[in-house]
Amino acid sequence: MEPALLARLDQWVAHRDYLNRSEAIRDLVRQGLVEEEWRDGGGETVATISLVYEHHNRLLPSRLTAAQHHHYARIVSSLHVHLDHDHCLEVLVVRGRANELRRLADRLIAIRGVKHGQLSPATIGRDLV
Amino acid sequence: MEPALLARLDQWVAHRDYLNRSEAIRDLVRQGLVEEEWRDGGGETVATISLVYEHHNRLLPSRLTAAQHHHYARIVSSLHVHLDHDHCLEVLVVRGRANELRRLADRLIAIRGVKHGQLSPATIGRDLV
Amino acid sequence: MEPALLARLDQWVAHRDYLNRSEAIRDLVRQGLVEEEWRDGGGETVATISLVYEHHNRLLPSRLTAAQHHHYARIVSSLHVHLDHDHCLEVLVVRGRANELRRLADRLIAIRGVKHGQLSPATIGRDLV
Amino acid sequence: MEPALLARLDQWVAHRDYLNRSEAIRDLVRQGLVEEEWRDGGGETVATISLVYEHHNRLLPSRLTAAQHHHYARIVSSLHVHLDHDHCLEVLVVRGRANELRRLADRLIAIRGVKHGQLSPATIGRDLV
Repeated sequence: MEPALLARLDQWVAHRDYLNRSEAIRDLVRQGLVEEEWRDGGGETVATISLVYEHHNRLLPSRLTAAQHHHYARIVSSLHVHLDHDHCLEVLVVRGRANELRRLADRLIAIRGVKHGQLSPATIGRDLV
Repeated sequence: MEPALLARLDQWVAHRDYLNRSEAIRDLVRQGLVEEEWRDGGGETVATISLVYEHHNRLLPSRLTAAQHHHYARIVSSLHVHLDHDHCLEVLVVRGRANELRRLADRLIAIRGVKHGQLSPATIGRDLV
Repeated sequence: MEPALLARLDQWVAHRDYLNRSEAIRDLVRQGLVEEEWRDGGGETVATISLVYEHHNRLLPSRLTAAQHHHYARIVSSLHVHLDHDHCLEVLVVRGRANELRRLADRLIAIRGVKHGQLSPATIGRDLV
Repeated sequence: MEPALLARLDQWVAHRDYLNRSEAIRDLVRQGLVEEEWRDGGGETVATISLVYEHHNRLLPSRLTAAQHHHYARIVSSLHVHLDHDHCLEVLVVRGRANELRRLADRLIAIRGVKHGQLSPATIGRDLV
């Protein structure tokens, strides 16, 4: 590796509390594999979907429940946190093909009243060393 | 302790995988303290509330959200599991005075469409050795 | 029903925010059915297990993870709340035969360092009207 | 807006199930505000941290618990899912300054045995219309 790149890597390692370079490189390789798993889109994988919305909207809870209901087999479970008097954060753990999970996330995030939403791809870990 | 009671205790210890009698007795004492904490009702404590209900009921999600909304400061977070095509299990972790938590549980369980509900008293553990 | 029992029922209905007597009676019947489901012990059901323990015990997290690991197929998911600087509450949603779930709960609660534990039987709701 | 950009926007709207253009544009603006909230790094915000790791590693649960313990005030709660015989997914909901949350995530992800980790910035929603 070129010295300049090594220097940047060492900075990164120090900044993130890695014990050494090889630990950091291993994580970067795994990150690349997870991204590939998601680009392919066909295999089974896992992800989280975060949604921030307001309690007060009377129809929103029913809409979210109905949308999730159609995909219930893919939703392992969800965690709900009351952020303040008005706002909730809901985090869904979903499992299925990457394509399907993306579609489910897009659908939930597009629901009127959802202020913020994000799909965060993860992995079932089997193919990572 | 009387031999007959000791024999019953040893059965109980063996049946529940305790390492020895004193471990089992310690747990029984703690259990008694938690019950007392809840009988007094005035101090801060923690509990879980489990609710089983049907997705399909259109108004239920809004009713549950509204009821929780009035008590949001007491609900730490909740976990939602889709049991099958029709049913959900929602588990709330709640924190506050025992009296208030009981009232909140009663209110949620009484909502039309909730098929099963239960308050399960726990403890913040501070006063248990 | 005898007048005295009716009076007690009406008190109970009022105290718990039920809209009317039949709502309250329906819930009592369902509660009885859930208890029967658990007494039989053979069919598939669902429950929560609450555990309160101290963070500081170095071996406890590994012991809990190992015990759960042997039963991972029955643990749908679990919710973890940091109660204070020292204590955690962990709530597991478990699914399987009532007998197995009781055994799993007994085993987890008996682990040294767990200060409080409780199995809270619920139901998958299918057989409740 | 230029016709070419509008055409791309309409594709995006259709693909994601938005009802109309303005719904989609509102979400894009909010997304930009959340990113700015995180770039500034000083205000209170909320995020999820996902971690995938193996059960079998005996020291890992203690290490993760210890690292979380130092930051317990920022961890609202966490959700744990057993992915298969070997792997877990843990999702933490964390709250605090963006800088602190990033540091906490970096520290957890760098722990030996964590195969995949990701910080997913969200928002407490207060400043989003």
